[in-house]
Amino acid sequence: MRRLRIGMAQVNTTVGDFEGNTRRIVRTIDKARSLGVDLLSFPELATCGYPPEDLLLKPHFIQENLKALERIVLSSAGITVVVGFVDSEGDIYNAAAIVHDGRLIGVYRKMYLPNYGVFDENRYFRAGDKCPVYVIAGVGVGISICEDIWYEAGPATIQAHAGAEVILNISASPYHVGKRDSRERMLATRASDNLAIVAYNNLVGGQDELVFDGDSVVFDERGRLMCRGRQFEEDLVVADLDIESVFRTRLHDPRWRKGNLLVKESERSTKVIVSEAPLVDTKPPLVGRQVELRSSSAEIYDALVVGTRDYIRKNGITKAAIGLSGGVDSSLVAAVAVDALGAADVVGVAMPSRYSSAGSLSDAALLAHNLDIGLMVIPIEEVFQAYLGTLAQSFAGAGPNVAEENIQARIRGNLLMALSNKFGWLVLTTGNKSEMATGYTTLYGDMAGGFAVIKDVPKTVVYELVRYRNSLANREVIPRSVIEKPPSAELRPDQKDSDSLPSYDLLDKVITAYAEEDKSMEHIVAMGIDRDVVERAARLIDSSEYKRRQAPPGVKITARAFGRDRRLPITNRFNGSKEAR
Amino acid sequence: MRRLRIGMAQVNTTVGDFEGNTRRIVRTIDKARSLGVDLLSFPELATCGYPPEDLLLKPHFIQENLKALERIVLSSAGITVVVGFVDSEGDIYNAAAIVHDGRLIGVYRKMYLPNYGVFDENRYFRAGDKCPVYVIAGVGVGISICEDIWYEAGPATIQAHAGAEVILNISASPYHVGKRDSRERMLATRASDNLAIVAYNNLVGGQDELVFDGDSVVFDERGRLMCRGRQFEEDLVVADLDIESVFRTRLHDPRWRKGNLLVKESERSTKVIVSEAPLVDTKPPLVGRQVELRSSSAEIYDALVVGTRDYIRKNGITKAAIGLSGGVDSSLVAAVAVDALGAADVVGVAMPSRYSSAGSLSDAALLAHNLDIGLMVIPIEEVFQAYLGTLAQSFAGAGPNVAEENIQARIRGNLLMALSNKFGWLVLTTGNKSEMATGYTTLYGDMAGGFAVIKDVPKTVVYELVRYRNSLANREVIPRSVIEKPPSAELRPDQKDSDSLPSYDLLDKVITAYAEEDKSMEHIVAMGIDRDVVERAARLIDSSEYKRRQAPPGVKITARAFGRDRRLPITNRFNGSKEAR
Repeated sequence: MRRLRIGMAQVNTTVGDFEGNTRRIVRTIDKARSLGVDLLSFPELATCGYPPEDLLLKPHFIQENLKALERIVLSSAGITVVVGFVDSEGDIYNAAAIVHDGRLIGVYRKMYLPNYGVFDENRYFRAGDKCPVYVIAGVGVGISICEDIWYEAGPATIQAHAGAEVILNISASPYHVGKRDSRERMLATRASDNLAIVAYNNLVGGQDELVFDGDSVVFDERGRLMCRGRQFEEDLVVADLDIESVFRTRLHDPRWRKGNLLVKESERSTKVIVSEAPLVDTKPPLVGRQVELRSSSAEIYDALVVGTRDYIRKNGITKAAIGLSGGVDSSLVAAVAVDALGAADVVGVAMPSRYSSAGSLSDAALLAHNLDIGLMVIPIEEVFQAYLGTLAQSFAGAGPNVAEENIQARIRGNLLMALSNKFGWLVLTTGNKSEMATGYTTLYGDMAGGFAVIKDVPKTVVYELVRYRNSLANREVIPRSVIEKPPSAELRPDQKDSDSLPSYDLLDKVITAYAEEDKSMEHIVAMGIDRDVVERAARLIDSSEYKRRQAPPGVKITARAFGRDRRLPITNRFNGSKEAR
Repeated sequence: MRRLRIGMAQVNTTVGDFEGNTRRIVRTIDKARSLGVDLLSFPELATCGYPPEDLLLKPHFIQENLKALERIVLSSAGITVVVGFVDSEGDIYNAAAIVHDGRLIGVYRKMYLPNYGVFDENRYFRAGDKCPVYVIAGVGVGISICEDIWYEAGPATIQAHAGAEVILNISASPYHVGKRDSRERMLATRASDNLAIVAYNNLVGGQDELVFDGDSVVFDERGRLMCRGRQFEEDLVVADLDIESVFRTRLHDPRWRKGNLLVKESERSTKVIVSEAPLVDTKPPLVGRQVELRSSSAEIYDALVVGTRDYIRKNGITKAAIGLSGGVDSSLVAAVAVDALGAADVVGVAMPSRYSSAGSLSDAALLAHNLDIGLMVIPIEEVFQAYLGTLAQSFAGAGPNVAEENIQARIRGNLLMALSNKFGWLVLTTGNKSEMATGYTTLYGDMAGGFAVIKDVPKTVVYELVRYRNSLANREVIPRSVIEKPPSAELRPDQKDSDSLPSYDLLDKVITAYAEEDKSMEHIVAMGIDRDVVERAARLIDSSEYKRRQAPPGVKITARAFGRDRRLPITNRFNGSKEAR
């Protein structure tokens, strides 16, 4: 029976860490060899990490990446390895090296370069124009990279019709809510359309604002899920692919026999013989393994944990500090930080003011106790008094306004940064997406810090996540009082978020439609939301771009985050709220 | 004698301001008509402003732009107009409308889309594939857009060989030092290679970090400069083009007669008849006008003034505040602000501390006097004391370090922002490129503000600019004592920049080579700079990316600014200083 044992390595690479990435790759090759793997794959650009951005413009960066590939080639005795790297020949290419038993056999160059959303690949790479079929251990294998497989008439289809029985795609596909479903529907379709097994190897781990979710999968030639790797964790997914079944299925498929599926471009695909037989041909059969699917809250929560952990650890930092207000946002961030770093490496800082409610400090203290983290209490009254005194003359004659509110937020930012500078802690900010969208946040105040854990999490989802986190622990880690109190910045007497903002239920709907989906006012009003709410929200979103530009990075979890995913000018007279009239 | 009167409108558009841009365009059409202009051009994407970035993803933005074009068409009685707009047909195109006497005659779609540096045009546009020759007032005219003309085998050459006697390029070419020279060399070559008149219409004005310098030019068919528009100012450049001379030159040119210049693609170019004769055929001859070239200091200074003025005014703000330390950076920023906004709309704020030298306050006062701006003096000692008292317990046992220094810088940031929040002033920050590169700056401290005027100006150039500004006034507007004192942050006793940084002469060379040109360590050491200096500077540049990510926008004046021009990951283990070993 013709069978191919494939191994897909979900590794957590780090951008620019050639030494560490290569060590990780070589170690995985050794492990896969011991498991009798015929064909072992690694994610897109595994040598240098993804996305390397403008590091790709440094010639010595490309050189280091080629040296890393050389070491991988030398470590490939007795196995076939497909690994992402930067190919260099006149121009540079996002490429996959096909390495076999100590030799570099061939190079596939990515044909479809994404240049939308968070992607800028046309900035760096030239596109490839060849998609051969490699015969590996006697099996026809078509190799492609990430974006390539999203195109129906792309390399996968061409390769299948040129003899590929297995389509292997190495990928670096950033997580967002709902993406896995659409990705897997696409992969299943690609498999069943081409009557080929599709093996999809995704990256895992956090890199600045992106989190890669792993979740590597194999679909058989009828589009049925065969196995799935872990989500948000490193994994080596090993599966025995039944090539005989592909042959039988094709033989009995009337469309396939007629050949009317065939794309005309298939003549562009050539065959490259890597090996006609497995290097290790007797091995015990594998026991299949699947990882269960989980709720979107579980997914998002894990994305936040991995994104936060990897940002902090990969930047060489040990401890994180969080300003705890007793509110739901900072409580969620503290829980994520504890799950990312461990309680010993998280410090809570409560900074009560004259406007803090009685519950604020006690709720922060209860949360810190529940999470088993240290809590520093630093009242801001004395410093606030000093500011008011110092500014009294300058402010003379002007009534109180947002200035006095922001001074307090900025005192807290300064105190947290002072702790950061004194002890080397990274400050995690606590603003959510609804606040970042509307500018309901203070620049250099609550926005001050190194990483904005929940900046892409809408307030309504914040509530879902704290409930999820409590359900995990089966107790109220985040106190009920925190969840139930009305949201407030507590920067003036009896302030409530609802004084300044529409209800979060409505606001979050507008943010999704307006800022993520570029829907027009008319469209959003037609969704059944009051025109005044829509216009107010759109105006706030438009006019807060300058604040967002100075925000720290944070984990992208929605289809479109603020930042590189949504590149709006600050200077912009286009009035989204006016256009409807 | 065959002659074409061309008008090139250097207008200062605003992104998204369809109403204002259209009004400006229509007004200019009226003026050009009264001057007997046959062919009037406007810059790239003049309807919507440049660059609109992700506004292009909003369908209603595209619609407003098409409505603007309709109004322009209706206003074109008796004249031919070429105007940049977004064409929409299935996909969207960066396009030029050819409008004649109340009708839309044709549309040219940009063929070469820049996707490097600050440009992301592949993110939005599909490229065009046709470059017809338009016969306007009996003259063959080839139209192209910006990047198109930089390609030797691009549309200009194809059009010239298909009968174009005039090559008109509408552009939005962002300023940087030295760019005009290389641009004009290219344009002269394009003209003389094709024996065609090249008319180049550039945008003028500031948009966020970019400044467009105008400087529209006409080169005759021998590559000689015929006229030049104003730099950094709106202008309507009118010139009579001698088409007879093009005919004669071609007739007598042996290469041209042999046709061996001809590109094979020329069959792709077709002819579109717009008008065989001028709409207004008798008019008095023009007196040519040229604008003089100036020094690079003058250019840079004007770029800063225009960039600052347009950012502030286009965002609807009236007044700016600047923290004056008595140092050279804040003095330069104050001078730029006064030239941008007028002295009445600039406020200086001196915030002396226990570490301020005697000269700091007196120099700031003298500068404010010289510039005729108001000066507020707000000592920070009381607030500083309050912070130290508040943090005493938290800091117990830890020695003084950068924390105490940064607290002072952040107090100043907070005070300036309090004034901003109280009175609606925009805070201009004063950090230069050498500081931004090395991270010799305090996040939320001296980096706090809305616009970073000199963030792309290296310290050595800061000195050149203050001398230039003083020479303009023919007196020491920026006091000699400011220029001559050794640079210091004055955050601890007797601090000097030279305690922490290499000399600025050396540092700026390394910044250019390493951060702008991506040169390797070995290369920079081979330039004759001490290896220790190079490694220290590279390490500082690499490790300060996280600070730069939270900096306010500022004017790009070098070939490669930090930010969208240089997109480096924060999480990055590639060690530029290690790689050399």
